[in-house]
Amino acid sequence: MDTSSYNTKLAPPLDQALVQQAMALIEPAERIALLAHEHPDGDCLGSALGLAHILRQAGKICVPACADPAPDVFAFLPDLATLQQTLGDENFDLVIALDAGELTRFGPLYERHRAFLDQATILNIDHHVSSSGCGKVNIIDPGAAATAELVVLFQQQAGLELDRDAALCLLTGLITDTASFQYTSTTPRTMEVGATLLQAGAVAETIVQPIYRTHPLAQLRLQAAVINNARTSCGGRIIWSYATDETLEVAGATAEMDDNLAGTLRDIEGVKIAAFFKSYGEPARTRLSLRSTAPYNVAEICQRFGGGGHARAAGASIDKPLPEAIPLVVQALEEAVHKA
Amino acid sequence: MDTSSYNTKLAPPLDQALVQQAMALIEPAERIALLAHEHPDGDCLGSALGLAHILRQAGKICVPACADPAPDVFAFLPDLATLQQTLGDENFDLVIALDAGELTRFGPLYERHRAFLDQATILNIDHHVSSSGCGKVNIIDPGAAATAELVVLFQQQAGLELDRDAALCLLTGLITDTASFQYTSTTPRTMEVGATLLQAGAVAETIVQPIYRTHPLAQLRLQAAVINNARTSCGGRIIWSYATDETLEVAGATAEMDDNLAGTLRDIEGVKIAAFFKSYGEPARTRLSLRSTAPYNVAEICQRFGGGGHARAAGASIDKPLPEAIPLVVQALEEAVHKA
Repeated sequence: MDTSSYNTKLAPPLDQALVQQAMALIEPAERIALLAHEHPDGDCLGSALGLAHILRQAGKICVPACADPAPDVFAFLPDLATLQQTLGDENFDLVIALDAGELTRFGPLYERHRAFLDQATILNIDHHVSSSGCGKVNIIDPGAAATAELVVLFQQQAGLELDRDAALCLLTGLITDTASFQYTSTTPRTMEVGATLLQAGAVAETIVQPIYRTHPLAQLRLQAAVINNARTSCGGRIIWSYATDETLEVAGATAEMDDNLAGTLRDIEGVKIAAFFKSYGEPARTRLSLRSTAPYNVAEICQRFGGGGHARAAGASIDKPLPEAIPLVVQALEEAVHKA
Repeated sequence: MDTSSYNTKLAPPLDQALVQQAMALIEPAERIALLAHEHPDGDCLGSALGLAHILRQAGKICVPACADPAPDVFAFLPDLATLQQTLGDENFDLVIALDAGELTRFGPLYERHRAFLDQATILNIDHHVSSSGCGKVNIIDPGAAATAELVVLFQQQAGLELDRDAALCLLTGLITDTASFQYTSTTPRTMEVGATLLQAGAVAETIVQPIYRTHPLAQLRLQAAVINNARTSCGGRIIWSYATDETLEVAGATAEMDDNLAGTLRDIEGVKIAAFFKSYGEPARTRLSLRSTAPYNVAEICQRFGGGGHARAAGASIDKPLPEAIPLVVQALEEAVHKA
């Protein structure tokens, strides 16, 4: 391999004809709405705010919008205050729909502005494999690790300006959709787009400190309680734990803080299948999350309890109180491990 | 900004004259020893094993060596079994010293082979700012995020082959020295080198699963105990906790598992200064680790207790039992917060 193989930068690029079609929509537009999907994440927010910033530099009036306000951890995003929960008087020449390929994914924002959006000129940019495309022009590439990756390719190929604020927004999309370039969706092109964003002045620490490193004390206390409640079986290959209203109360925690506790249990050394049980509010009902490593298929196990999901991550809602649900599920897990 | 600015790949490259001088040492050599420093980390191991793999593909007999065996988490590194703790009969034409600029950093391996190493022909590749260089040829660049970054630049500029096994070793160096491209030492060049390694087939998940995600249950139980022991002051701006022999015993943990608990406390929402106290084995002695966020200078506070360190991370060893040491330190922290 010689160094000449490194001149194919940002390959594969976007279809340049598609970039030109998109610019043909953008160039005559004066007022542009940029939509992030409901329950927003770092990629839809970073893509909408980043592209809004880029297009403002190009002289456009841009209104980024999302059905829900951004979660607090995204407070560092430049121009976050410009994000609206409404399209106001709907006075827009163009709508750019980001990080989803169906208008229904924009949730209440779509419901409220349905008449306008159903006839609006839309440019759709998305990386989801399920996207059918909801635009007059659709830049859709499931090979991209994040919609932000496609926004940067578009910015580069369209010859638009990229400054530090836009780069920080777009790097947020890349980092949150790849767990900082760790997921296998990360391609050489994703890394090269990352290089482009660092070159423009974005700093990863600004993003990862609030999003990955900072946790409320109550969340750590909840995790501590769940670790203390954990029991193992089959020589540590199975682990399970639980949380109840009392667990939350003692920790001072809220229900949302139990996010990914099943994953934390699965990542314990030697664990093949991890189960997290919770029962909040309804004592007769238990919610189950299962996580596994290959070859264990926990979707199959959850199906037996009326649930479903993916082979390595699945769930179910069981109409039994916690003390009855736990032994039933643990028995099913032990059978799965003994069969393997 | 137009796309033409993206043809300066892997810029800034190494000085090509230096690459040629290094190749002038490598080309006539038949047997090459590659040294990783003592107490090895992902970068020295990944650089030594990765470069050994590259040079074997070029027909060389390569012996990677390190004073200490690799920690278990690096078991996934290809060809780890070829890592020796000795240079055997010292029958080498060339020594490549990686990730340190002084032979003393290679520890007992240097002590045991001092007569040989003091006269050997050495190529030194390192990224530490303190490096004086211990080689006949020194490729030293403190602007590199990892020594592995320099090894990849060297491989590219020297026109050597890069296959998946070598790429996985070298990506390990990049990831472990940057916390997966999160530290500010990450430059656009670091990301471009990452793109090159992914292009060659390396997969980040292989590296991050054992190194960052998998923890022994005992370590999570120790962390849970430390969170449960935590107390706060000044409205949560100060947090402190502790571990003793009994804490370790109840958790089933070993002392090494308390690594970075001070950092975990510092990353709690609202915390400005975090203190972790421990007393193992010697009840009359307390070890203190302080972590802070700007502008708090914890090195100054540790100096008052006979210790020192950096502004945001410092430590001290206090000749008092835990119950006496804690209130003294907490009082000093409260004074620092009230003064600010």
